[in-house]
Amino acid sequence: MKKEHNTAVVGLGSMGYGMALSCVRAGHKTYGYDVSPEPMRRLQNEGGQGEKLFEIISTIDAVMVVVLNARQTEDVLFGTHGIVAQMRKGSVIVACATMPPDFARDMEERCSMFGVFYLDAPISGGSIKAAAGQLSIMASGTSEAFAAASAVLNATAETIFKIGKTAGPGSAMKAVNQLLAGVHIATMAEALTFGMTQGVAPEMFLEVISKCAGSSWMLENRAPHIVSGDYSPHSQVNIWPKDLGIVLDIARAANLGTPLAAAALKQFEEAVEMGLGGEDDSAVAKVYAHNAGLSLPGEIL
Amino acid sequence: MKKEHNTAVVGLGSMGYGMALSCVRAGHKTYGYDVSPEPMRRLQNEGGQGEKLFEIISTIDAVMVVVLNARQTEDVLFGTHGIVAQMRKGSVIVACATMPPDFARDMEERCSMFGVFYLDAPISGGSIKAAAGQLSIMASGTSEAFAAASAVLNATAETIFKIGKTAGPGSAMKAVNQLLAGVHIATMAEALTFGMTQGVAPEMFLEVISKCAGSSWMLENRAPHIVSGDYSPHSQVNIWPKDLGIVLDIARAANLGTPLAAAALKQFEEAVEMGLGGEDDSAVAKVYAHNAGLSLPGEIL
Repeated sequence: MKKEHNTAVVGLGSMGYGMALSCVRAGHKTYGYDVSPEPMRRLQNEGGQGEKLFEIISTIDAVMVVVLNARQTEDVLFGTHGIVAQMRKGSVIVACATMPPDFARDMEERCSMFGVFYLDAPISGGSIKAAAGQLSIMASGTSEAFAAASAVLNATAETIFKIGKTAGPGSAMKAVNQLLAGVHIATMAEALTFGMTQGVAPEMFLEVISKCAGSSWMLENRAPHIVSGDYSPHSQVNIWPKDLGIVLDIARAANLGTPLAAAALKQFEEAVEMGLGGEDDSAVAKVYAHNAGLSLPGEIL
Repeated sequence: MKKEHNTAVVGLGSMGYGMALSCVRAGHKTYGYDVSPEPMRRLQNEGGQGEKLFEIISTIDAVMVVVLNARQTEDVLFGTHGIVAQMRKGSVIVACATMPPDFARDMEERCSMFGVFYLDAPISGGSIKAAAGQLSIMASGTSEAFAAASAVLNATAETIFKIGKTAGPGSAMKAVNQLLAGVHIATMAEALTFGMTQGVAPEMFLEVISKCAGSSWMLENRAPHIVSGDYSPHSQVNIWPKDLGIVLDIARAANLGTPLAAAALKQFEEAVEMGLGGEDDSAVAKVYAHNAGLSLPGEIL
């Protein structure tokens, strides 16, 4: 009989919760933890385990850490709860937050002192794909870390990119992806409002441009939110000052100028200042519309 | 018997030449004109007509004007050769250059004084699709202009977007597309070189990102040129200071800030200053690489 797999997911936001569900569905004994009790109760109702994670942490095979950033990741691993010191030798941390590559390397090294493997495993795909077990994971780490993480990777990902043999390259590729994704969202908003000033309606913009050379994955995914005037957050504006900030920090340290990432960051920061941080990131269009006196679909100025 | 269609193509660059070939293939009697005699000879060898266009202009049903910009378009229509005054009533100008919407409206009005229809018909798709008769055309104009242009549209386009009922919206949509396309090319270059500073090789960048949320039509089309180190021009760097300049002019007049288009324009202008104007537009990556001391594939610093 195949040994049961004990999985933990720390951080039950829209991504982490979906990933935990995917693990339940794959037959793992799945423990969730979040600062808010509500998603923990919800997960338990959907087949998750009831015990408190930090009391049974030594029985866990793989912990997916799906928190906001590097600082929170470090806090889970070595801070308040300090789970790594209590984990069994040969178990694995699968770190999914976007963070600087150097930070990921540091986490890997500190885990190795406890005999715990570390997979640098940023995720991409959004909450719907997380719940469907169809994420893209850009992973790097030792072959032992990949082997120890294989059950949770298979449960949560459709595509697993093996980017490198130590922690670092996975986070680097995620930063590259976020640079592009963030700039593409802001550019979509810029082009959509630019079209409006010339009498091109948002629906027409979406219909034509999505079939032309100006299209992007983000345009096809986010422009419909603006067309329908629905800014309920799939991915929040708040993500971008954080992720583009990481990009700019890394780029500055490498002496690379990134003027487009810098320009996009400014637009998202302005959106946060306008009180739009909790809205869908397509709400960056409101920055453009507000500055030019345009009225977006469903919006009253 | 169906009446023979007499088509003229003014401007036999890589786009216009391919479009003229598509008209020959569709059975049109096709006349070409260019400031350089070489493509005119070449077109004649491939089935084009031998007579001088400006001597038989009154026999032409549709003139596709595939020149660089608004100024050249005006020159063809009302300047040196002043073809519109000599064209028969009910024939049509199909204007394919990227230009400001207001300028297109002005051209339409001036053509109408001579009983000549005007279709505002910017093109998208590149030289390979032009030669295959598979362009996307973002057209706007009266139903009479569309009817008069139907034979040349069918010969050259796979997709015809009917954007509006007067000249203007077609050019506006093209400007929207160029804003996105130009920013996406520069962003691809920024992200690719950013990845290189973090140990992500250009091949790995292309392989992973083209399957992730950071992808764009331009990334998938242009990044392979950088990976292979081949900058023979499909579309030149020189296009972008012109087209993004048009975008910024229109946006400024509409009081819309376009910081991403402005940032991309600067990168292309720097590429031109580095002497890269005649290279493929993916060569904007050399601006980033040069500034950061990186060596791109096939390049020796």
